[in-house]
Amino acid sequence: MARRYDSRTTIFSPEGRLYQVEYAMEAISHAGTVIGVLSKDGIVLAAERQATSNLLEQSVDNEKIYEMNENVVAGVAGHAADANILINQSRIVAQRYLLKYDSPIPVEQLVRNLCDLKQGYTQHGGLRPFGVAFLCAGWDSALGFQLYQSDPAGNYSSWKATCIGENNNNAQSILKQEYKDDDKEESGPNVKSVGSQMTMDDALKLTCQVLSKTIDTAKLSSEKLEFATLTLKSGKPCIHVYTSSEIDEVLKTYESVIKPADNQ
Amino acid sequence: MARRYDSRTTIFSPEGRLYQVEYAMEAISHAGTVIGVLSKDGIVLAAERQATSNLLEQSVDNEKIYEMNENVVAGVAGHAADANILINQSRIVAQRYLLKYDSPIPVEQLVRNLCDLKQGYTQHGGLRPFGVAFLCAGWDSALGFQLYQSDPAGNYSSWKATCIGENNNNAQSILKQEYKDDDKEESGPNVKSVGSQMTMDDALKLTCQVLSKTIDTAKLSSEKLEFATLTLKSGKPCIHVYTSSEIDEVLKTYESVIKPADNQ
Amino acid sequence: MARRYDSRTTIFSPEGRLYQVEYAMEAISHAGTVIGVLSKDGIVLAAERQATSNLLEQSVDNEKIYEMNENVVAGVAGHAADANILINQSRIVAQRYLLKYDSPIPVEQLVRNLCDLKQGYTQHGGLRPFGVAFLCAGWDSALGFQLYQSDPAGNYSSWKATCIGENNNNAQSILKQEYKDDDKEESGPNVKSVGSQMTMDDALKLTCQVLSKTIDTAKLSSEKLEFATLTLKSGKPCIHVYTSSEIDEVLKTYESVIKPADNQ
Amino acid sequence: MARRYDSRTTIFSPEGRLYQVEYAMEAISHAGTVIGVLSKDGIVLAAERQATSNLLEQSVDNEKIYEMNENVVAGVAGHAADANILINQSRIVAQRYLLKYDSPIPVEQLVRNLCDLKQGYTQHGGLRPFGVAFLCAGWDSALGFQLYQSDPAGNYSSWKATCIGENNNNAQSILKQEYKDDDKEESGPNVKSVGSQMTMDDALKLTCQVLSKTIDTAKLSSEKLEFATLTLKSGKPCIHVYTSSEIDEVLKTYESVIKPADNQ
Amino acid sequence: MARRYDSRTTIFSPEGRLYQVEYAMEAISHAGTVIGVLSKDGIVLAAERQATSNLLEQSVDNEKIYEMNENVVAGVAGHAADANILINQSRIVAQRYLLKYDSPIPVEQLVRNLCDLKQGYTQHGGLRPFGVAFLCAGWDSALGFQLYQSDPAGNYSSWKATCIGENNNNAQSILKQEYKDDDKEESGPNVKSVGSQMTMDDALKLTCQVLSKTIDTAKLSSEKLEFATLTLKSGKPCIHVYTSSEIDEVLKTYESVIKPADNQ
Amino acid sequence: MARRYDSRTTIFSPEGRLYQVEYAMEAISHAGTVIGVLSKDGIVLAAERQATSNLLEQSVDNEKIYEMNENVVAGVAGHAADANILINQSRIVAQRYLLKYDSPIPVEQLVRNLCDLKQGYTQHGGLRPFGVAFLCAGWDSALGFQLYQSDPAGNYSSWKATCIGENNNNAQSILKQEYKDDDKEESGPNVKSVGSQMTMDDALKLTCQVLSKTIDTAKLSSEKLEFATLTLKSGKPCIHVYTSSEIDEVLKTYESVIKPADNQ
Amino acid sequence: MARRYDSRTTIFSPEGRLYQVEYAMEAISHAGTVIGVLSKDGIVLAAERQATSNLLEQSVDNEKIYEMNENVVAGVAGHAADANILINQSRIVAQRYLLKYDSPIPVEQLVRNLCDLKQGYTQHGGLRPFGVAFLCAGWDSALGFQLYQSDPAGNYSSWKATCIGENNNNAQSILKQEYKDDDKEESGPNVKSVGSQMTMDDALKLTCQVLSKTIDTAKLSSEKLEFATLTLKSGKPCIHVYTSSEIDEVLKTYESVIKPADNQ
Repeated sequence: MARRYDSRTTIFSPEGRLYQVEYAMEAISHAGTVIGVLSKDGIVLAAERQATSNLLEQSVDNEKIYEMNENVVAGVAGHAADANILINQSRIVAQRYLLKYDSPIPVEQLVRNLCDLKQGYTQHGGLRPFGVAFLCAGWDSALGFQLYQSDPAGNYSSWKATCIGENNNNAQSILKQEYKDDDKEESGPNVKSVGSQMTMDDALKLTCQVLSKTIDTAKLSSEKLEFATLTLKSGKPCIHVYTSSEIDEVLKTYESVIKPADNQ
Repeated sequence: MARRYDSRTTIFSPEGRLYQVEYAMEAISHAGTVIGVLSKDGIVLAAERQATSNLLEQSVDNEKIYEMNENVVAGVAGHAADANILINQSRIVAQRYLLKYDSPIPVEQLVRNLCDLKQGYTQHGGLRPFGVAFLCAGWDSALGFQLYQSDPAGNYSSWKATCIGENNNNAQSILKQEYKDDDKEESGPNVKSVGSQMTMDDALKLTCQVLSKTIDTAKLSSEKLEFATLTLKSGKPCIHVYTSSEIDEVLKTYESVIKPADNQ
Repeated sequence: MARRYDSRTTIFSPEGRLYQVEYAMEAISHAGTVIGVLSKDGIVLAAERQATSNLLEQSVDNEKIYEMNENVVAGVAGHAADANILINQSRIVAQRYLLKYDSPIPVEQLVRNLCDLKQGYTQHGGLRPFGVAFLCAGWDSALGFQLYQSDPAGNYSSWKATCIGENNNNAQSILKQEYKDDDKEESGPNVKSVGSQMTMDDALKLTCQVLSKTIDTAKLSSEKLEFATLTLKSGKPCIHVYTSSEIDEVLKTYESVIKPADNQ
Repeated sequence: MARRYDSRTTIFSPEGRLYQVEYAMEAISHAGTVIGVLSKDGIVLAAERQATSNLLEQSVDNEKIYEMNENVVAGVAGHAADANILINQSRIVAQRYLLKYDSPIPVEQLVRNLCDLKQGYTQHGGLRPFGVAFLCAGWDSALGFQLYQSDPAGNYSSWKATCIGENNNNAQSILKQEYKDDDKEESGPNVKSVGSQMTMDDALKLTCQVLSKTIDTAKLSSEKLEFATLTLKSGKPCIHVYTSSEIDEVLKTYESVIKPADNQ
Repeated sequence: MARRYDSRTTIFSPEGRLYQVEYAMEAISHAGTVIGVLSKDGIVLAAERQATSNLLEQSVDNEKIYEMNENVVAGVAGHAADANILINQSRIVAQRYLLKYDSPIPVEQLVRNLCDLKQGYTQHGGLRPFGVAFLCAGWDSALGFQLYQSDPAGNYSSWKATCIGENNNNAQSILKQEYKDDDKEESGPNVKSVGSQMTMDDALKLTCQVLSKTIDTAKLSSEKLEFATLTLKSGKPCIHVYTSSEIDEVLKTYESVIKPADNQ
Repeated sequence: MARRYDSRTTIFSPEGRLYQVEYAMEAISHAGTVIGVLSKDGIVLAAERQATSNLLEQSVDNEKIYEMNENVVAGVAGHAADANILINQSRIVAQRYLLKYDSPIPVEQLVRNLCDLKQGYTQHGGLRPFGVAFLCAGWDSALGFQLYQSDPAGNYSSWKATCIGENNNNAQSILKQEYKDDDKEESGPNVKSVGSQMTMDDALKLTCQVLSKTIDTAKLSSEKLEFATLTLKSGKPCIHVYTSSEIDEVLKTYESVIKPADNQ
Repeated sequence: MARRYDSRTTIFSPEGRLYQVEYAMEAISHAGTVIGVLSKDGIVLAAERQATSNLLEQSVDNEKIYEMNENVVAGVAGHAADANILINQSRIVAQRYLLKYDSPIPVEQLVRNLCDLKQGYTQHGGLRPFGVAFLCAGWDSALGFQLYQSDPAGNYSSWKATCIGENNNNAQSILKQEYKDDDKEESGPNVKSVGSQMTMDDALKLTCQVLSKTIDTAKLSSEKLEFATLTLKSGKPCIHVYTSSEIDEVLKTYESVIKPADNQ
C-alpha cells in the first residue's frame, strides 16, 4: 500500500501518513546514539561515534556534538552533511538575535526556527526532508535549563532525559526507570520546574549507565564517545566539550555502573 | 478508482473529490481530541495529549493549545510541525493588524487568513495540504465570543460546541445531547447570539464529560490533558491556560460526570 | 478513453474535452442548491445549507451567500475554501474600481474578472480548477438588475432565473415552466430588458416553490436555507440578507406552493 | 500511435504532428458555427448560439460576437472562457496602439498579436492551447475590409468568405459555390483587392443561405443567432450588432433562400 | 528503440539522436516546397502554397515569403504560427542593429541569431522545437548575395541553390544537375564567390523547372505559388515580391521548361 | 540495466555512470573527424566536412573550424547549432577579458570557461548536455602553443596531437605511432615543453596522413576538408584558415603519405 | 527494492538511504586513487592518473591535484568537470575571505563551504549530486596541518592518512598498519595534535608503498602519478607540486618499499 505514496515528498497516503518523513526517521534510527540528561545544575549530552579508525584525526572538531550558540549545545544523529546546513543556519539566527536584542536567543526560539526550516522541506515539492535529528541542550534566563529533541518532520518536544539514534528504545526505557524526578508539589503554575532531583554527577552516571547498555562494544572508550555539559558559571551558561582524556576519566569514575552491563 | 487521482495534490477525481485533502483529514482523525465549548461568559478549550512520558518536560510550552493573539486561543489536532508554521503566520498577521489599526484583529478575519493560506496548499502543484485542524476560540467587540473550526482544505465554520481529532464523532453526539442552547426568540436579525444558556461552569463540566467518553484511558489526569479558557475581565479578553494542578482541580470538581463514564 | 487525459489540468482529450474541468463541475453538482430569480423590482437568491447541526453558530456569517460589493451579492456552490479566495479577490477588485472611478463596478465587469481568474487555473500547469460555481446578482446604472452564473471553467452567462448545485436540472425545468417572461415587444435594440413581468413577491414565491422540489427534506426550515434579495431603495442598490426568523416568515407566506410539493 | 505523443503540449509525434493542438481544434469543431462574408461595402458576421433557454438573458452581451476595437469585430467558436482572455488582451493591445499612434490598429497587426499569444501556449510546457478559433472582420485605411480566421495553433489566414465551428465543411462548400468573386483583371500588384462583386445584401443573403444549411434546427430564429456587420459610414468603420428583432427581419427578408434548405 | 527517448525534448537517445528535433523536421517535410536559387545578379525565392481556395484572400500578405529586413527575404516551410514568432523576432533584431550601427544587419548575423533562438528550444526542458525551416536570401556589402537554409535544430548552411519542404529530394537533384556553377579559378582566398554563371533569367527558369517537377499539380498557376527576388538597384538591395499576374507572366515565359515536366 | 537511468540528464546509474552524457558522446562519434597536431612552430587543425554538395556555398563561413579569439581557433565535432551557442559565448568571454585586462585571454581559461558551461548542462534538470566536442588550438605568452580537447561532460585535457569524431580511434593510433615527441631532458620543472621535435611541415604531413586513413573517401579533396594553422608572426599569434586552393596545394604536397593509404 | 527510490535525487528509500548519493560514490570508486599522509612537518598528496598517452601534454596543468588557496591543496577523485566547478567556487570563497579578513581562510571553513555546496545538490530536486570526492591538505595558524576527506553527500572528516578512489580499501588497510601515530600523552585538551611521529620522508615513503600496492601497473612511473607536498617555509605554508623528474626521483629513493610489492 505504501508503494504509491512514498516516492514523493509532498503527499499524504490514504491513512494520512507522510512516508518520506518516516523514511528519513528510519535513516536516523541507524545513526549513532545521542543521549541527553537534565539535572538541577545543568545538562549532560553524550554521543556515540560510529566510524572510528586510528587514522581519523580525533580533535579537530567534534563529529556529533556542536555548539550552536553560547547558551545552546546540540547533539546530532543522522546525515552529517544535512546537519551542517541546519547548524550553520541556526548559528546565523542566534547571532542575528544577539545583534538585534543584545541578549542570547531563548532556547525554544532557536529550536523552533530550526524546526520550521525542517518542516518546509517536508511540504514543498522537489525537496527531501533533512535526514537528521537533534538534541538541543540550552539555558536561558526565562526558563533555565532545557533539553529539546527535534525530528526530520520538524516536530520538537521538551524532555528531562531522552535519546535519539540507534537503540533509542532501550535507552529510553533505562532512562525512565533510573531518572529521579523532581518533587512536583513545589512547582507553581506556569513556572518552569527545571529542578530535577539529580545532580550533574547523577546525570553523568546515568548517561554512562545508558551508554554501556546501548552501544554495541566490548568496552566503552573515549574513542567512540563524545561528551558535553552545559552548566552555569557565575550566572552565565558554560558549555564544556570533553577531551578524550576527560571522557576516559568519566568512564573510570562510573566504572561501577558500566561494568554490570558488561556482565549481561 | 481513487488510485489515479490521489497521488497529486491539485487534481479532481471524476467524482469531484480532492483525495489528497481527504487523506490529510485522515491524518487529523488519528490525532488527539480537541474540544471547544462556548458559554455565555466565555469559551472552554480542552485537548488530549497523546504522547506522554514521565521524562517529558510538562510545562515549557503547551503541546496542543496555543495563544494566537491576546483575543484568540487555538487548539490543534494533527502534525505539530505544520501547526507551528500556521500559528507563526497567524501571530504575525494579528500583530500587523494591531500595528495598523491599533485594535485586536477580529476573530473571523484571523481565521479566514489562516484558512486562505491552507487553501493555497490544496490548489497549487508541488505542495501538500497542511495536515492540521484548528479550534479557534476568540472574542472581539463586534461579535463577542466565537468558536471556529478549520480543516486542511481551508474550510471553516462557527460552532457553539465542537470537537476535532480522534473519536470526534462520539464527542459530537454527546455535545449535541448535552449542550443547552440559547433562547432563540431574543435574537434579532443580524445580531450575534452568543448568549448560550450555559455558564462557564456548565461548559467546563460538559467538557469533562465529553473527555471522559472520548479519551481512551482508565482515569483522566492532568498528564494527558491541556485546558484553556477565554473569558472577559474588565471588558478585555483574558486567556487562561491551566497548570497541571489546576487541571487536576477541575477534574476533581466534575468527578461526578466523569465517573459514570468509567462505569460503562 | 478518459483515463489518459484526466489526470492533468492542462490537456485536451482527443474529443477536445478538458476532463479536470468537468470533474470540478461534478464536485459542484453535489453541493447545496443555489437559486436566483430576477424580477422587475430586484433579484432573489436562495441557497441550501447542507451541513446543519444545532451546535453550528447560525448567524456569524452566511455560509453560502456573500456580499461581494454594495451592488453585487453572490450565492456559492462547491468548495467553500475555494470560494473564499475568489470572493476576497472580487471584493478587492470592486474596491479598487470604486477608488479609481468613484462609482460601483459594473456587474458584468466584476463577474468577468472573477471568471478570468478561474480560467487561468484551467490552462496553466500545476494548478487545479477552482471547484466552485457562483450565482451573482447585481445592479448597475447601465444595465439594471442582472443575474450571472459562472462555472469552474470560467464561463459565465446572464439569466432571468437559474440554479446551480444539486438537483439543478429539476429546478431548471420548474423555473422554465413557471417563470413569467417580460413582454418582448417593448424592448428596443441594444437596451437591457430587465423588466420581467414578475414582482419580487412572485420571485420569492417561485423560489420557495423550486426549493420545496429540489431540497431533499421533509419540511423546509430556516435552518437549511439562506435568503437574500437585491432591490433598489431610493435609487441605490440594497442587499438584504434574511435572518432565520425572516426566512421562516417567507416560508410561511408561501406555504401554499410548498405544501403540494410535500404531497408528491 | 498517437497515444504516446498526445498527453503533453509541447512535443511532436514522429509524423511531425502536435496532437494537443489537433485536440483543441476538435473542441472547436463541436462549437456553434460562425460565418463571415466579405462584400465590397463591408463584412457580415453571423454566429450560432448553441445553448438557448427562455430563461437566458438575451441582450446583456453577445455570447459569440465581440467588438475588439472600433474597427474590428470578432466571432468566436470554442471555449468562451478562453475567448474572454484573448479578447481582453486584444482590446488592450488595440487601445495601446491607439494611444501611441493616434490611429486605429491595422487589422492584421491585431490578429497577428492574438495569434502570437496563442502560439506561445502550444510551445511552452505546463500550458494547454487556447481552445478557441476566431473570425475577425476589420477595416483599416491601408487594406480596407479584411476577414481573418485564426485557429488554436496560432495560424491565421485571410478570406473572402469562411466558416468555423460545427458543420464548417458544409458551409465552406456552399460558400465556394455561391460566392461571387471580384474581377481579377483590375487588381494591380500589391494592391488589396477587397472589391468583391457582392453587395452587403448579397452577403447577408449568402450568410442566411449557409446558416439554413448548417444549423441543425427546424426553423432559423433570432434566438439561436447573432449577427453583426462592419461597414463604412462617412469614411469611418461602423460595427453594427443586430438586435433580435433586426435578426428576425433579416431572416424574413431572405426567407426565399432559407426555405429551400428546409425542403432538403 | 526510439520509444523511450522521443517524448521529451531534451534527451539524447543511446545512438546520440534527438528524436524531437527529427520529428519537427518530419513536420517540415510535409510542408509546401520552398526553392531558392542564387544567380550572379540576385536571388530567386519561390514557394508553394498548399492550402488554396478561391475564397482565400490572395493579396493581403504572402503566406510563405516574408521580408525580414530591407536586405533579407525569407521563405518558410512548416508551422506558420511558429514562423511568425521567429520572423517577428528577426525583424526586431534587424531593426536594433540598424539603430545601433546605422547599416543593415549582415545576413549571416541575422540568420545565426534566428538559429540560436531555435537551438535554445531543443535544449531546455518544457519546450518543443520550432516546427519551421527557413530559406533566407540576403545581400550585404561584405559578402554580396547569400542564400541560407536553417532547420528546426538551429543548424544553418549557405547554398547556391537549395530547397526545403515536400519533395525536396527531387528538387535537390534537379538543382544539382542543372545549376551552372561559377568559374572557381577566379575566387581568391577568403573572398565570397557569389559570381555564379547564372543570370537572374537562368535562375527564374531553373526555379520554374524545379517547381514543375516537385509540385503535385496538373498545371502550375499563380494561385499555388509565391515568388520573390532580391536584386541590387543602384547599389542597394531591392526585394520584389511578385503579384499573381507577374507570376503568371513568369510561368508563361518559361513554359518551355515546365511543359516537358508535364509529359513525364 | 541502463534503461532506468538514461532518460533524465541528472541522475547517476547504480554503476555511477551518467548515461545522457555518454549518449551525447555517441552523437559526436558519428560526426566528421577533427584532427589537431602540435608542432614546435605552431598547431595544425584539420576537419572533415560530412555534408558536401556542389550547391553548398564553400566560402561564406567554415562549417567546422571557427576563430574563437585572436589567439584561439577551434575545430568542432557534433551538433553545429549547439556549437554556435558555445562559440558565441566563448567569443564574448574572450572579448570581456580583453576589455578588462588589455591582453588576450589565456587559452586554458577560455577552454575552462567553455567546459564549465557544458558541465552545468549535465547536472541541472530540464536540460540536455551540449552534443558537441571541441579541439581548441591556442597560444598565450605564458604557456605557448596549446591544444585542448573537450567533451560534452565538460572535461578537457591538453594534447600534443589528438582527434575527435568518427574513426578517432584509428586516427589516435596513427598519431601515437608517427608523432615525434620532444626531447624530455630539456624540460625543467613547471615549464611548458611545447617544443615538440616536429616542424609545421611535419605536422601538416602527419595530419594529411591521418586524414587519408580516417576519411572514408576515394580521394581527399578540398571539398571535404577544412584546414587551419595557428603560428606566431612577429611574436603575435596568427590564425590562418586555408582556402580550397590552398588545401588542394597541401594535399598535393603530401601526396606521398596519402597515396599509400589508398593502396591498403 | 532499490528500484523505486534510486531514480530521483531527493528521496529517501524505506531504509532511509539516498540511492543517488550512493551511486555517485560508486562513480568515485572507479576513479584513480588519491592518497594523503600527514607528517609532523607537512602533508603528502599523491594521485594516480588513469588516462595516459604519450600524446597527452604532461605539464600544462595537473589533472588530479589542484591548488585551492595558498594554504590548501586538493586531490580529486571522480568527474573532472564536476571537480572544476567546485574548485573554482572554493577559490573564489578563499579569495573573498582573504579580501575581507586579510588572512588565509581556515582550512576547515573552506572544506565546509565546499561540502555545503555538495549537500545542496543532494537535497533539492532537478539536480544530481556532484560525482567527485576530495582530499584537502591544508595548514592554518590555529590548527596547523590538516587533511580532510569529503564525499559527494557533503560529509567531511579529518584524517591522519587516508585514501579515496579505486582500491581505497587496500590502501586504507596498509595505511592503518604502517602509519606511526603520535604519542598521545602529550596532547592536552582541545589542542590540535598534528605532531605525528612521521617525518615528511616517512610520509613520502609510506605513500610510495601504498601506491605500489594499489595501482595496477607493472612499474610505477611519473607518467601515471601526481605528487604534491604542503610544508612550512619560514612560517608560511608552501605547496610544492612535483615535476615528472622529481616524481621519478622520489620513486627511485623509495625503490626498496616499492619493489617488494612487485614480488607479491
